Amino acid sequence: MNKNDTQKLKKLFAHLDSNKSSFLGYPVNCDFDYSELYDYLSIPLNNVGDPFCSSYYGLDSRDIEREVVEWFAQLHSAPSNNYWGYVTNGGTEGNMYGLYLARELYPKGVVYYSQDTHYSVSKNIRVLNMENVMIKSRRNGEIDYRDLHDMIATWRSAPPIIFANMGTTMKEGFDNINKIKETLKKLAIPEYYIHVDAALGGMTLPFLGDAPAFDFTTGVQSISISGHKLIGSPLPCGVVLALKSNVGRVSRAVEYVGSLDSTISGSRNGFTPILLWYAIKKHGFNGFKKMVRGCLRVAEYAVGEFEENGIKAWKNDHAITVVLPRPSEKVCRKWKLAIQDEIAHIICMPHVTEETIDQVVKDMNGS
Amino acid sequence: MNKNDTQKLKKLFAHLDSNKSSFLGYPVNCDFDYSELYDYLSIPLNNVGDPFCSSYYGLDSRDIEREVVEWFAQLHSAPSNNYWGYVTNGGTEGNMYGLYLARELYPKGVVYYSQDTHYSVSKNIRVLNMENVMIKSRRNGEIDYRDLHDMIATWRSAPPIIFANMGTTMKEGFDNINKIKETLKKLAIPEYYIHVDAALGGMTLPFLGDAPAFDFTTGVQSISISGHKLIGSPLPCGVVLALKSNVGRVSRAVEYVGSLDSTISGSRNGFTPILLWYAIKKHGFNGFKKMVRGCLRVAEYAVGEFEENGIKAWKNDHAITVVLPRPSEKVCRKWKLAIQDEIAHIICMPHVTEETIDQVVKDMNGS
Repeated sequence: MNKNDTQKLKKLFAHLDSNKSSFLGYPVNCDFDYSELYDYLSIPLNNVGDPFCSSYYGLDSRDIEREVVEWFAQLHSAPSNNYWGYVTNGGTEGNMYGLYLARELYPKGVVYYSQDTHYSVSKNIRVLNMENVMIKSRRNGEIDYRDLHDMIATWRSAPPIIFANMGTTMKEGFDNINKIKETLKKLAIPEYYIHVDAALGGMTLPFLGDAPAFDFTTGVQSISISGHKLIGSPLPCGVVLALKSNVGRVSRAVEYVGSLDSTISGSRNGFTPILLWYAIKKHGFNGFKKMVRGCLRVAEYAVGEFEENGIKAWKNDHAITVVLPRPSEKVCRKWKLAIQDEIAHIICMPHVTEETIDQVVKDMNGS
Repeated sequence: MNKNDTQKLKKLFAHLDSNKSSFLGYPVNCDFDYSELYDYLSIPLNNVGDPFCSSYYGLDSRDIEREVVEWFAQLHSAPSNNYWGYVTNGGTEGNMYGLYLARELYPKGVVYYSQDTHYSVSKNIRVLNMENVMIKSRRNGEIDYRDLHDMIATWRSAPPIIFANMGTTMKEGFDNINKIKETLKKLAIPEYYIHVDAALGGMTLPFLGDAPAFDFTTGVQSISISGHKLIGSPLPCGVVLALKSNVGRVSRAVEYVGSLDSTISGSRNGFTPILLWYAIKKHGFNGFKKMVRGCLRVAEYAVGEFEENGIKAWKNDHAITVVLPRPSEKVCRKWKLAIQDEIAHIICMPHVTEETIDQVVKDMNGS
């Protein structure tokens, strides 16, 4: 490389590194250190195919991937003899997988999802070519059960595929699985599928008391969880969990790699499973519990501070996302705040402290 | 982490590291060193959204990603004012993107692809819910133009979407774009789409004289190229190129991230673009040319050596893949050979030397 290129790389790194501390608008933990794992980047890792089968490829981390999937399966009470999953490239792939499974099970199914659902989902649905209806949201970001009822009622012959959110993008709203099931029961719907996008909630709610339930015992059939959000990762990643009995219908054997072709991606990242495994081993259930409760405390502190300073902020119960009126462009840029219409949000990830909040309040007050 | 976990990590690394030298069956270059870039793994990089738009997210490598896309666009003679692309998670995403574009342009289109096409493509087509016909292959892995003609002829009302291969999985066969176009012309097909899976060929053929042509000047509309194959990468990645005028029809603005939602993945890896950029800057066009020609020489040497030892090996012109009769299970396992029915192959990637070939010949002769 010539001097200019080396310089460019250095400049980019310095820019990124300095931006990390003021990163409040996205659900991404900046507080991680995986330097112990860098050696693995000398190997062309590829977890091609099904993590629960062997593969001829040989340079993989499937053992470790299975342990990661197992940990998440237990966290979400998946039936021990009937779960399956893999480490994905992020939420989009996990949600696409859940919807793909649902479509294969119910080719005439209709997807119902709230208007507060992440923007990638409508693209997923378009890619998968599925019938769909967007449902109104309540003001707190939760799905509107009345509207859901009315829409399903008009189309009772098609099996509903419910795309539920455990932490919507802007307001971290949680859809109530029990209320959804009551709605389906009231309409005498015999067959349905519930997929849960728990990108954020999948790693926060299990560590909080009295949190909204969405694990496999509630009757959901697949869950997608992000790895780069609460856990933190330099590379987008996630975990998708599904019922093994459903997955069997879409996978098939591929001789070339000596494995089962059950995943959306063919070649699959073998480094991110090691990274998630490392984080799980390092923090453990109790470490994450402490981490999440810390986030919640900072979020509660933030709402209090904003209110005390005349800024109408609020948050959902069990949420670590603080919603506030859209600040000036300058403040948004400085703190990388995500905005939508008239609101903005701060997500109290582990690297966000009470001192950070004090700074934002100061900036919003223009002092 | 406890002692057991640390031990497990160390053992896995040693196992993987020792396996690298005998890795001949997959199109993956093991010869790379990105240690200068490891610092970037302290940052939650995310190139969310369109690389050619800005984003609020802030912790990204979009500038670098654009340079990578531009380099590949030039390599494949994309029209300078009408190309678009991004760094993908690998071939599956690139091929899915091409097919998705084709489907949006021709919702009633039918996909034609040869039986030697990579196994992930039929899954892609299934995910995208597209009509499709598998076409017979010639013995060398190339598509059978006669069969292609006959199949299109029976369904002339539907726009053909041709999925062409520049390097099929087992035999590295190359579909001839000109012959495909002649077939379409003979049948007076007014509208069609050609996507090229150039996972391997996209980084070998441009560096060889007289190689089969498949760049944008031949009339193809999208190309998917792997980054972890010839270039080499610890993480699967790739580049997809398409005509900007086509892409405009599928993208839409997303306020949340202040970007365009033009890609399949929402959150996108920001490290792999840096890695590809680094490799491009390090090797340059001439470095890759030397690398590819070296691979070709080893492949030619291998065919000669196998033949001299009574093993019926062969390869396609311009291919670095040597096809041979399926060796014993022991040999396949030792050298991680990919197998299909009665054949196996060795892919002469940059880490494969004449000495490696000599070893394999020895092992196959049982001496």
